[in-house]
Order: sequence, then C-alpha cells, then structure tokens
Amino acid sequence: MKSDSTVHGHNSWVRKLRVQMPSPSLKDNTADIDRLVRYLKKELRAENISIPYSLIKDIPQLLRDFAYHCWVSAYEDYGTWRVIHLSPPEDKGHFYGLALDLGSSTLVMRAIELNTGHIAKEISFHNPQIKIGTDILSRIHYASKPEGLADLQQMLITHLNERISGVASELALAPHEILALTVAGNTTMTHFFLGLDPYWICREPYIPVVNRPEIISAQELGININPRAPVFALPNVGSYFGGDLIAGILASGMNHMDEICLLVDVGTNAEVVLGNKDWLMGCAGAAGPALEGGVASMGMMAGPGVIDKVTIDPQTLEIQYHTIEDLPPVGICGSGLIDLVAQLFLAGMIDLRGKFVASRCGERLIQIEGINHFVVVHANESATGKPLTLSQPDIDSLIRSKAAMYTILTTITKTVDIDIHDIGKFFIAGTFGSYIDPRSAITLGMIPDLPLETYVPLGNTSLQGATLALLSQEARQECFEIRDKITYLELNVNQEFMNLFSAAKFIPHTDKTLFPSVRPYPR
Amino acid sequence: MKSDSTVHGHNSWVRKLRVQMPSPSLKDNTADIDRLVRYLKKELRAENISIPYSLIKDIPQLLRDFAYHCWVSAYEDYGTWRVIHLSPPEDKGHFYGLALDLGSSTLVMRAIELNTGHIAKEISFHNPQIKIGTDILSRIHYASKPEGLADLQQMLITHLNERISGVASELALAPHEILALTVAGNTTMTHFFLGLDPYWICREPYIPVVNRPEIISAQELGININPRAPVFALPNVGSYFGGDLIAGILASGMNHMDEICLLVDVGTNAEVVLGNKDWLMGCAGAAGPALEGGVASMGMMAGPGVIDKVTIDPQTLEIQYHTIEDLPPVGICGSGLIDLVAQLFLAGMIDLRGKFVASRCGERLIQIEGINHFVVVHANESATGKPLTLSQPDIDSLIRSKAAMYTILTTITKTVDIDIHDIGKFFIAGTFGSYIDPRSAITLGMIPDLPLETYVPLGNTSLQGATLALLSQEARQECFEIRDKITYLELNVNQEFMNLFSAAKFIPHTDKTLFPSVRPYPR
Repeated sequence: MKSDSTVHGHNSWVRKLRVQMPSPSLKDNTADIDRLVRYLKKELRAENISIPYSLIKDIPQLLRDFAYHCWVSAYEDYGTWRVIHLSPPEDKGHFYGLALDLGSSTLVMRAIELNTGHIAKEISFHNPQIKIGTDILSRIHYASKPEGLADLQQMLITHLNERISGVASELALAPHEILALTVAGNTTMTHFFLGLDPYWICREPYIPVVNRPEIISAQELGININPRAPVFALPNVGSYFGGDLIAGILASGMNHMDEICLLVDVGTNAEVVLGNKDWLMGCAGAAGPALEGGVASMGMMAGPGVIDKVTIDPQTLEIQYHTIEDLPPVGICGSGLIDLVAQLFLAGMIDLRGKFVASRCGERLIQIEGINHFVVVHANESATGKPLTLSQPDIDSLIRSKAAMYTILTTITKTVDIDIHDIGKFFIAGTFGSYIDPRSAITLGMIPDLPLETYVPLGNTSLQGATLALLSQEARQECFEIRDKITYLELNVNQEFMNLFSAAKFIPHTDKTLFPSVRPYPR
Repeated sequence: MKSDSTVHGHNSWVRKLRVQMPSPSLKDNTADIDRLVRYLKKELRAENISIPYSLIKDIPQLLRDFAYHCWVSAYEDYGTWRVIHLSPPEDKGHFYGLALDLGSSTLVMRAIELNTGHIAKEISFHNPQIKIGTDILSRIHYASKPEGLADLQQMLITHLNERISGVASELALAPHEILALTVAGNTTMTHFFLGLDPYWICREPYIPVVNRPEIISAQELGININPRAPVFALPNVGSYFGGDLIAGILASGMNHMDEICLLVDVGTNAEVVLGNKDWLMGCAGAAGPALEGGVASMGMMAGPGVIDKVTIDPQTLEIQYHTIEDLPPVGICGSGLIDLVAQLFLAGMIDLRGKFVASRCGERLIQIEGINHFVVVHANESATGKPLTLSQPDIDSLIRSKAAMYTILTTITKTVDIDIHDIGKFFIAGTFGSYIDPRSAITLGMIPDLPLETYVPLGNTSLQGATLALLSQEARQECFEIRDKITYLELNVNQEFMNLFSAAKFIPHTDKTLFPSVRPYPR
C-alpha cells in the first residue's frame, strides 16, 4: 500500500510520517497547527493530536520552509499522539530510539533504527553509581543525604549522556534524531534514574514512589536526545519486583504460553516468575552474591582470560578448562565456578556436603592461613604468576546460594500446587545465566532435574524487553498487562522455608530421588 | 450526598477533592503515586489520571506529612485528569481561578472562587502593549523586529503578574492557590499572549499559528500562579474571528436558542454573529474607530466627567447632558456621541446627510480653522475651561461607521436569506455597547428598526465567556463546538457592498421605510 510506505514504525508507539499537506489558501485558511493536526488525525486514525508548546512557536516557519511537505515524528500516550519533531522533506525518514538495561552494576544500551527494528549499535558500561557503593543499599543510604539523590541521578544521566553522544557520533546522528528511550531496571535503579527517593522502598511496608511511571520527556530528565522524546521506564510490581523482570517476562513470551513456564533471573537476588498465559506469580529472594563473582576469592565477572568452563576426568582427575578468548587464566566467573564445583563433585573430590575429599584431591589441596584451598590452576600456568585456588568457604557460599535458589523454586511451585517436574519451559534470564551449563547446575542441585531441552537461556532479557517495548505498541501495553496480572509472593523465611533450605544444602539434595540423572562418584 | 460535598467545582474541569486514603501496609503496599491514582480514578470516575513529573518527586513526603489525608486539585484535558496541587487536610478547600478578557486596549481580570463561582475581585487595566501602538497592526509590525514578539509577550505577562500579585494579596491568597486561568481575546492578542508570531495573520491568506490552542501550564507561560495551573485560551475561528467572539456567543447563549439571534460586538471592528441552535454565521468588518473615542476631537473612553447621555429639546433647542459621576464635563464618549448626533438630527440641527443646519444651530455653530464645529458645552461650563465641540468631520466619521455597521448587518442577513426584521434577539456585546441607547442607534440607522425589547445589552461578553469556560466543563467544551459550527463570512467589499454602504450613509437611511419609527424634524 503506497500510503503505508510513508509511515515508519507501524507497530510502534513512536512513528515517523511523511506529510504532504495542501498549502493554505483563502478557501482553506485554517491555522498552521490545526492544519497539521487535521492531517495527523486522519493519517494516524487518532482522536487526539497534541503539539507541545515548545514546538508550536516554530511550526509556522518550518512548514513554510518545507513548503508544507515534511516528516513528522510523534508518539502515543493515553490515547493522544504527541508530536516530537518536524524534519525536512529531504530527510531519509530514518529515526532512532534507545533501549536501556539499567543494571545496578552494568548498563547496556542499544541504538535501534525504529523504521526497520535494526540494532545499529549496542554498548555496555559500568553503572557510575558503583563509586558510591556496589550494593544498592549503600546507594539508598547515600540518597538520604543532602543532595545525595540528585547526585546519584546526575551521575547516571551525565554518564549516559556521554555514552549517547559517543553512539550518536558513531552513527552520525544528531541528538535530536533520537526520538525515544525505554528503560528497564529494578525498582530502586528506576527510582534513581527518575530522581525519585527510594527511602521507603527498603522500609516496611516497602513502598515505591511509583509503580507505573508516566512518560517523561527527555528534556525533563536532562537526557541529551530530542528534548521532546518520550522516556518510558517499564513499570514495577513493587519494591522487589522491578521493570527488569517485567521486561524478562515480555522477552520470554511466557505470558502467551499454554504450558507452565518458569523464568529465573540469577543475579544478586534470584528472581523467579512462574506461570503461563492465564496467570503469573513472581517472587524475589536473596540467592547470595556468590554467583555474581567477587566473593569467591578467585571469582570475577566474565572477561578475557576468565575460566568459564571446567571438566575433570574422574579417572585421571586431570583438570581441563576453557578461558574467554583462550588467554592465560586470570580467574573464574560464576558459570565456570558452577562447572568446577559440579565436576569436583562428580570426580569425588568433594563430598555431598561440599567438603574437600583429601584422598581424591591429593597435592592440589593446600592450606592458606589455615583454610583448605584447591589449586585449580598452578602458578606457572596462570596469568598472574600465582595459583588460582578455590577455597572451602567459596564452595560453602555457592552451596548456600544454590540451596536458596532451589528452595525458592520449591516454594513457589508448592504455593500454586504444581509439581516442579510439570514445568514445560525453564527460562534462564541474564547474561550470566546464558553461560551456565544446565547440566552442571542440575548436578549441584541448583535447578531441578528436568530434561535439558526444558532449559532455555535467554541472555539479557532486561535489554530485550526494553527493546520490545520500544518497537511495539502492543509490547508496551503488555508491560502493564503483565504488571497487573502478577501475584507477588512474599517469601517468608519461616521454619518450613528453613527446613527446605537445609535439605537443599547437599549436593545435589538430601532427597536423591529428586535428581535421578545425577550420578556421583563412585558410580 | 455526603461524598459529593468533598468535591469542589462539580461542573468545572478544574476540581478540588478531599482525599482520605488508607495508609500503606504489607497487605496494600502499592506505590504512593499509584495509590493516589487509584483513589482519584474512583473519585473522578476517570480512565486516566496523570501526575506531572514535577509533582511526583514531592508526593511521598507530602502524603506522609498529611497522613494520607489531603486535598487534591486537578483538571481535565483530553479525557485525562491532571493533578495540579496537593494541600494539607486543614486547608479549607477554597480554590481560585482567573478569567481574563484580553482586550487590545483594556484587560479585565476576574478572580473567581471556583468552589462557589463567587466573583471575589474584578479589575481592569490598560494593555501595556499600548506603548508600542494603540492599533494592533503597529504591534504586529513590531513583533517582526528582533525580540519584538518576545518583548510584546513579556510586557503583557509581566504586567499581568503584577496585577495578579495585587489581587492575590488583597484576597490573602498565595499564588499557588490560583489553579486555573482562562483567556478570551481576539486572535492576534491571543497570539501575543502565547508568544506566537502573528506575522501571517494579516497577510493573505490570513493564517493564524493556531486556532485551538492546547492547554499550557502557567509555568510555561511564566504566569505567577500555581506553576502547574492550566491556562486555557479560547479558540478562534480564524485570523479575524477570535476567542473573544467565541466567548461572546457562549455568554449570549444564542447557540442554544430557537429564534434567530444577532450578536454584535462594537469595537474597532464591528463583529457580527447571526444564528441560533442550528447554525451560526460570523463576520467581522472594519466599522471604523469613530465609535471607540479618540478620533472625534472631543471623543474619549468612558470615565468621570465624560458625557454619556444627551437630549435636545426640538422646540427650545436646549441641550441637556449627563456626565459620569455628575462631574463637570471633560469630553464625550461613544454612547454620548451617538445620543448627541441622534438628538441633533431629531432637532433638525443636522440634515439627513449629517451636515449642520446653520439656521437651527444658531450661535452654537462656530468655525475653527475653517471647519464647522458645534459647541456642545460652553467654555464656562466645561471642566477644561474650553468649549467642548463636535466637528463636521466627527459626524462624517460616525456616519461612515454606522453605515458600515448597517451594511454588514444587511449583508450577513441577505447571505442567509433572512429578513432583518425576523431577528428575535439582538445582543449587544462589549462594555461600550451596554451604554448605547438603542433608540439613538436606531435613529441614526446604525441598527435596524426593531422593537426596543429585541435589544439586549450584555456588557463584557469576552469576560463572561472566559468566566463560563473557567467554571464549567460543558462551557469549555462548547467553545470548541461553537468554533466548529461557525461559518465565517468573508466580507467582500465589492460593488454591491459599496451600493449598500452608500445607501446607508444617510440618517437613518435612503430608504426611510426601513426605519418607520424614526420621525425626523420637522415632523
């Protein structure tokens, strides 16, 4: 259809239209703004068109400069289409939006060509708020100091602007050509981003300022894209269930599926959503920081030279490992750690409580300051010139984390009276989750013993959800539908929970019948 | 109904509600903003509630300070209720709005208590733009200079702010307690007020920037009331048919009447609307400035000592006059001028062409610089110590004006094929119009020879319309309905118009049968 070819971003709530209006005449002498509104109402089949005051002043001259032939960008909100920008007829009609995964440690940003959906650029960078504190509680504390909140917001926006400016210059875009921004973050990060006080988030009864933030203009937030560009922060369910998880559900598509699905986002918290097209239940619980690196003495974030895969031959006890970019090893990341501990167990080098078996570990078991350490990489092989070791406390910490995860999964399925083996799809969200070998995670008893094809790693679902919400009007609407549909399960760490937790603190579990596929040494 | 008693401004699109929400608890831990939105949706029976970003930040603390019990002010726009302000529970619930008649020479402003509709204060003051030029064309010219437009807008806003501040302090109101402003002005004045360039208004094909201005926040316009207060400028039909006339129609109620009505606003232009509940036709034509004072050598705006009524005894030729506040005479205003010329005609002191009849005028007819003048007030009686006179050119000018008016009335009724005598109501709008004696205006042939009860002076309909649009949701909506209903009649000053005009340049008219009630001297 010819007329359609001039509307870009068909399914998006942000669109760009080629507009060719009749010039004013004595017979058709309606005002410039009303002429444009009349045209857009027809073209967008919209009841209401709104043109912001900041643009109205310039429109008469622009329309005359463009001979009433131009491109108009607009977005939909509350049933009203709001004009963002007018550009000249010689413009190619391309337009861009940004999707942002607002992580507490890492931000990932995509620049997307909205007329095609093409991802033009993706960058990731540390959250500049890390300098206030790596954990979010210390930032909440900082926010309560005078100017603290404004400071936290400003460091985020300033840094984001630098990165946006870099991306724009790489793509040869003027900032005003970036016409929308969607943001998925946890509730606290979203509050920091919007400059809203998170004070009540972490205090009973845990009240966010807002669950469904309205669209705010880039100008109001100080973001250097088109000043009238809409900024859409995905809604949250509550203090502990944020827009990042709404994004995750959106990205998984579980809310459209018949079979029962489980979505797990493994980060500082294990965040879990269970459900299908008819219902959704979510919960979030502290799974311990062991899985994120930083606590295990040699643990670290994934990066060059980091061990991400380990195998141990149970006969020869020979250790093989893979490092990222095949560089000499510098440490181990979460997925490598899960592999390592699973392999140690299968080789009989640790027992079902995770304790080192001296007879199997041999000379690789050493003592540092009175604590057992297992030498994974000898000093002569490591990039640091020092041995890379795994300590008993590292394993203990991992076991607590995996036990917490399994207990949460058990609790949520029990709550809705579903057998954990009835789960049809087990989505693993998060960049970290993508690297986990499900076989190793099952061996440890971190995740249930389901057929391997049940496990679907999704990567960065926060970013994917933000992307969907940017590109599709339906997806943006779905964020609210998902939000309203979710029942949030408050995890009560009561006696029953503690009993389940204790039972899960073995490898793979005290109840071995739950993990028939795991065959520990000796077989 | 008890619950109703806590919503103030029932029929207005600006309301103030007493809100008492349950405090957050673990069982009801929705976010503060969402809690408020949930409450307002129910209370206002609204689909959409919007809370501006500037307010969101402060709400959590305010709600806690007020123990979730407060007053909320909001206004409706595009089907969405937008929150303006939160005030403490001890607040009395009063709230105020301003209605402004934005005249090119005079501004009249009312402060209205919105919960009762009570007019708390009304003031009028000169348009500060007069220093740029008394006529609007010179201001349009000035607007095209660098910074000219901003300058014109600024002098208006600055002066308005001073007046608002004065009214607020008299009423003991903080500026943030003023929660709305409606503005009725002609198209050009509305453009100046909004800072929109009127350049194309006076150039063919006469295109305003906007016909239906959106609601703009007081902050965006720099008006010192509540920064989030909505400013609603009444829409215009086109360059020559402004919001002041829409206000006039609204104030007259003619758009609800069965009988055919005529509304005339006599100012620099004679603006005329003909119609009823089924149709409306409007036109505006230059009626000449003679009626506004300032051109007639002794003419002036109404004020203390100004002659506003004149009678002449046709037998004795004795002149009696009334001055405003019964002070010694200083000049004559438009309504006095119409009386005077009508009385001169009825006394045979001017003939049907408006020329002085020397035999009847006697020693009151003098010559100043070769021009005939009629001494209305002798030097010894006048406040100035000089005689107050009416010159032949003053009369000629008045006759041209009245002829233009009558020709416009004839033209518009002819266009829709209506006999001018079928008009059921003849509304005279404008403060000036209220002072005109219809009997005198008929005598001059300025308005048709209808029964006197047909004539209804309405006073300042621009101000009244702005008031209605402030107080009533329906009235505001009606502005747009009226706007969309009106057919604008472009007056073509062609041969036919000129023929009608020439015929009307006699007192009362060349066709005396049109004015059977006028009995000129000698009877």
